[in-house]
Amino acid sequence: MSSPPRTACMNVDVDLSPLRATLEDAGVDGYLIDDDASDSDQRYLSGFTAPDSYQTLVTGDGIHLLVSGLEYGRAQSEAAADSVTRRAAYDYQELVGQYGPYEGKLRTIAAFLEDHGVDSIAVPRTFPTGTADGLREHGLEVTVESKGVVEEIRASKTPWERDQIRRTQKANEAAMARAEELIAAAEVADDGTLLADGEALTSERVKEAIEVTLLRHGCGLDDTIVACGADGSDPHDRGSGPLRAEELIVIDIFPRDTETGYFADMTRTFARGDPGEEARRRYEVTKEAYEAALEAVEPGVTGGAVHDVVCDVIEGAGYETLRSDPTTETGFIHSTGHGVGLDIHEQPSVSPAGGELEAGHVLTIEPGIYDPAVGGVRIEDLVVVTEDGVENLTDYRVALDPRSS
Amino acid sequence: MSSPPRTACMNVDVDLSPLRATLEDAGVDGYLIDDDASDSDQRYLSGFTAPDSYQTLVTGDGIHLLVSGLEYGRAQSEAAADSVTRRAAYDYQELVGQYGPYEGKLRTIAAFLEDHGVDSIAVPRTFPTGTADGLREHGLEVTVESKGVVEEIRASKTPWERDQIRRTQKANEAAMARAEELIAAAEVADDGTLLADGEALTSERVKEAIEVTLLRHGCGLDDTIVACGADGSDPHDRGSGPLRAEELIVIDIFPRDTETGYFADMTRTFARGDPGEEARRRYEVTKEAYEAALEAVEPGVTGGAVHDVVCDVIEGAGYETLRSDPTTETGFIHSTGHGVGLDIHEQPSVSPAGGELEAGHVLTIEPGIYDPAVGGVRIEDLVVVTEDGVENLTDYRVALDPRSS
Repeated sequence: MSSPPRTACMNVDVDLSPLRATLEDAGVDGYLIDDDASDSDQRYLSGFTAPDSYQTLVTGDGIHLLVSGLEYGRAQSEAAADSVTRRAAYDYQELVGQYGPYEGKLRTIAAFLEDHGVDSIAVPRTFPTGTADGLREHGLEVTVESKGVVEEIRASKTPWERDQIRRTQKANEAAMARAEELIAAAEVADDGTLLADGEALTSERVKEAIEVTLLRHGCGLDDTIVACGADGSDPHDRGSGPLRAEELIVIDIFPRDTETGYFADMTRTFARGDPGEEARRRYEVTKEAYEAALEAVEPGVTGGAVHDVVCDVIEGAGYETLRSDPTTETGFIHSTGHGVGLDIHEQPSVSPAGGELEAGHVLTIEPGIYDPAVGGVRIEDLVVVTEDGVENLTDYRVALDPRSS
Repeated sequence: MSSPPRTACMNVDVDLSPLRATLEDAGVDGYLIDDDASDSDQRYLSGFTAPDSYQTLVTGDGIHLLVSGLEYGRAQSEAAADSVTRRAAYDYQELVGQYGPYEGKLRTIAAFLEDHGVDSIAVPRTFPTGTADGLREHGLEVTVESKGVVEEIRASKTPWERDQIRRTQKANEAAMARAEELIAAAEVADDGTLLADGEALTSERVKEAIEVTLLRHGCGLDDTIVACGADGSDPHDRGSGPLRAEELIVIDIFPRDTETGYFADMTRTFARGDPGEEARRRYEVTKEAYEAALEAVEPGVTGGAVHDVVCDVIEGAGYETLRSDPTTETGFIHSTGHGVGLDIHEQPSVSPAGGELEAGHVLTIEPGIYDPAVGGVRIEDLVVVTEDGVENLTDYRVALDPRSS
């Protein structure tokens, strides 16, 4: 890969001292991850991404990778590691031949740890139990680091990371604009169905236009929500079928930059024509809650307090929340927000249990109100906590009516 | 989501009796997965997919899901489960408020297990150590199922699954045809660079065309390889920059159907103009190895034996393999193939340690020969093992020269 390995730049400003302090407090020699690059902690620590599993070891003196022969050359040139070793150095294939893939892998990792003078390790909560129990049988001390210290480190974004997230959100804005344009330009059939080029403008067609736009901006995505009417009242319903006039249309896009791995996230609620008084009221209440939350965010305030601000507004307008009724299926039925980075959902949490926000945290603010009888409203921006408040990484009108008609 | 939940159909023909036999042998009450749907074992067993973590419990009498309130409605209508419980039924939010997110989650899972009369569980190797150790502290017996019985079950595809994989491979063929067409239709500049519309035809442009084609066929992908010249000699290099005439161009596409989650996989090696005698020879040797492997595949033959057939051909032609030299960085430097399904790399393995192939296994055959001085060659088809041999799921010419010139 001859393009500049942007992932490798990332770690320049990363401060791993909280992790090393945790290791010291626990009295262990190292921190081990055994996963593939879908584990964002590993991608973050190693500055490397590979489709198959590899191991990242953080010790007091460095970051050490254990990779397959296939990944060895690329890891050497791209990874943000102090050393890269290939599994063949510990006779991996021979061990697999002799003991099978499970035990062969364990013995290879045990040899790698021994090579680095490591007898005891802390591991993330998600560390594979098979590897943990297996290494214990080989005499290693394995303890779970249960606070999620790497997730905590990741929550505060370096300036480089903020730039990556902003870049992904720019792509997101282009995709949202394309979707809005399709809804605004559609014709309305007699039965209220939106039409484009003489055919129903479906959720699927709008999603395809979003995805093609994102692709052209270097982003991919697993999923997009374009949900009309009752579909939009289930916050995770992806939506399907024809879009209709005079109904709420929730569009939630969460793309990932293919190269850097950084996500962005944004939701807007549109309507073509008048969705009715109750829908318009819910939109205004949601907007008020969203503005109140943006106003509340600053360092030292807890995610729980920001969530309470949103619940106050929504309950004050007469709708249920999970705070007023933990089993409600209508009203405001999710958290106010979540961190965004190499994962689409990461620390910090803007929910009842959410802890203190810090400068550098990147998070969503996304209140919503849902009811199958009315549809769904959600407004979501992506912001970064600054020294004295918040900087919005989202540059898109709050929305509702595409060229109102 | 009102479109037919295809994932839910999948499990109709799935036979979980090997899993239940394993539980009985181990004397445990259930099998538990704690992950999100990126864990394909969980997606397979639950017939459900969600962005955040949920739990799947298999007992002697059924499949039981524990999900967030946000996923509850969708899980009830889509999942292939006998029961779906939401976390709020065990006071999840209150427990998180009282004990924090880690212990709160553990107590919720412990209550869910108690509710189903489960005191002892087997877990997959990848099960989070944090959950395993935490449940042990709550008195549960947790043992690792180390053979990978669910992966083994998944290796044999039901007729429905084969149809899904075939469908993804159809999309793949359309994308490969589009890439080949771009290379064939390009002009050749004086310095050998391929040009399209007056600008360099780059790896990036071809990848974009591939991705747009896949999108229109309902597929997504994380990555594609379009690697020219020396780039192609590193099997996992994604390639970048201008494509050139008289060089080998390796294109490896591994899309995933967005809805069903089933992957496909195919590689072709192209050249515009004559890549030289040595490159042509390597192509012919690779093709011979590929044909010999396809000939060798049948039930009862091991993946290791098929891999040996490939090594025999390639070593016989005078090139190194990892069998002849485990540290070689040129020649044939990966396995012959891997299973493909809900994961791009799954069982069975067509490698030195690969076990017996069975009818219903879906796997790749992908020999290759690599050297920075010459470039890379790889030919990869996706096949299903039948009662008496192999059925090729790939309908694409073996390749090399786009409209030879």
